[in-house]
Amino acid sequence: MVRRIAIVGLGLIGGSIGLALKRSGLKETELVGYVRSPEAANKALRLAVVDRVEQSLTSAVSQADIVVLATPTLAIKEVLAQIGAYLPSGCLVTDTASTKAEVMRWAEEYLPATVDFVGGHPMAGKELSGIEVAEADLFQGCTYCLVPGRGASTTSVKRAVSLVRDIGANPLLITASEHDNFVAAISHLPLVISSALVMATTQSSSWSKMSRLAATGYRDLTRLAAQHPRMNRDICLTNQKNIAAWIDAFIKELSHFRRLIADGNEAEIEQAFTEAKQARQSWLDEHAKRD
Amino acid sequence: MVRRIAIVGLGLIGGSIGLALKRSGLKETELVGYVRSPEAANKALRLAVVDRVEQSLTSAVSQADIVVLATPTLAIKEVLAQIGAYLPSGCLVTDTASTKAEVMRWAEEYLPATVDFVGGHPMAGKELSGIEVAEADLFQGCTYCLVPGRGASTTSVKRAVSLVRDIGANPLLITASEHDNFVAAISHLPLVISSALVMATTQSSSWSKMSRLAATGYRDLTRLAAQHPRMNRDICLTNQKNIAAWIDAFIKELSHFRRLIADGNEAEIEQAFTEAKQARQSWLDEHAKRD
Repeated sequence: MVRRIAIVGLGLIGGSIGLALKRSGLKETELVGYVRSPEAANKALRLAVVDRVEQSLTSAVSQADIVVLATPTLAIKEVLAQIGAYLPSGCLVTDTASTKAEVMRWAEEYLPATVDFVGGHPMAGKELSGIEVAEADLFQGCTYCLVPGRGASTTSVKRAVSLVRDIGANPLLITASEHDNFVAAISHLPLVISSALVMATTQSSSWSKMSRLAATGYRDLTRLAAQHPRMNRDICLTNQKNIAAWIDAFIKELSHFRRLIADGNEAEIEQAFTEAKQARQSWLDEHAKRD
Repeated sequence: MVRRIAIVGLGLIGGSIGLALKRSGLKETELVGYVRSPEAANKALRLAVVDRVEQSLTSAVSQADIVVLATPTLAIKEVLAQIGAYLPSGCLVTDTASTKAEVMRWAEEYLPATVDFVGGHPMAGKELSGIEVAEADLFQGCTYCLVPGRGASTTSVKRAVSLVRDIGANPLLITASEHDNFVAAISHLPLVISSALVMATTQSSSWSKMSRLAATGYRDLTRLAAQHPRMNRDICLTNQKNIAAWIDAFIKELSHFRRLIADGNEAEIEQAFTEAKQARQSWLDEHAKRD
């Protein structure tokens, strides 16, 4: 029997999952896509990220064995509310949103007991969005968080783990609250920092002259500010407390550096930068996906 | 008559200036280098970043038409104190330090009236240091700040401008105080942010688990923390007030984002990220050196 995987939302992430699954050479698997805009649907077919595109959300999922929700975060709530009644019994539903606690709550609220939900979040991406920038190796070697929903069977969790491995990523089982706390620190805080740095500098009355001096360091530190504003909004709205707490922790650390600099103690300043350099290097040595 | 250019300090910047000058095909120009460590001197010869290396600082500069000081910032003071008496009359002395006001004061204090000083700062670099990573096109298309010292002749300023053009960079005449204020915003603030972000995250008791989720966004935002700690120290010690003021301005902006996020106003959050995205894009469109 042919297995059907439905991908709802065909942007950078949904499109890349389609391409990665195709490349993995899955047999007896049909990839069905759904995306709201007809223009995006045409692009998806042209780029062959799925085998076919369905005209309606419900027809896309109604015979699926696995449903992957790759829409913007807030849209997931809406989609869950719409598809619940159409999902075949035993279906595995997963998502790719940047935050998990809210999504898990929505899944519990809207999905019937006959299907299992395992939340997902690939720790990969780029600041560009849209299906045009989708690529088969986007997830290669990246950590892919999985959060089993209440009542999800071991079989469903295993299927989610397999799917993640099929696209080249490393599954990491984690709770929603840990996930949201961690991504607030290593992903959402950097996003807000990046955006605040752009505003602090570009709003200066000297910016037109100053901007000529800005180079690669400035470009890298502000890169995340180029992410899609609506995606950023959804991230913030679904992870408010964690992000606020991490901004506070960061400001405390930044104020410490400020004190050292204002005091001008040579040894302490050098020591602080040495520790930061070493701590980052340890992370790179152990975990970083290089490119 | 053969013109002699002496480069004092053969690390990433000094080495790259040597390579860039050689590639520019200057005729009748002899490139002489000096670097304190014999090991670095051997590497400089092996990598052919200069024509020859002198054994002593004073012999390197004593017959030079142009002296380029590419040592760490605080070492420049020492070098200026040592070379003053040995410089030929009419010699142009320049430097490559990340801050300018202090360097200009040292030049005035230590150099004789018979030579001209034009401070310099190429807005290019990488987080790696050392002559091994020097490259001929490091300055290609970058802005190169020039700060004429008090009493520097028009001829000397023109010679500095030519030298900058020879290595492929775009000269920008600027005052020391403007320079130091601007680089505090677009270079030193990002460096401190980067380092503080590393410390805020890696000191968390959850870091060992959290670190598995950190990916390219975290890597980019913390890249500047990998710069040489002593170089960072020198930057901070010679630009204390500007950096502290820009940290304050940044914290104000970050606190604004924090308020928006904690309040959870959808429209305002999206608007703030939209403005940041657009402001960065305007900068990229106008100025950024892409790679």
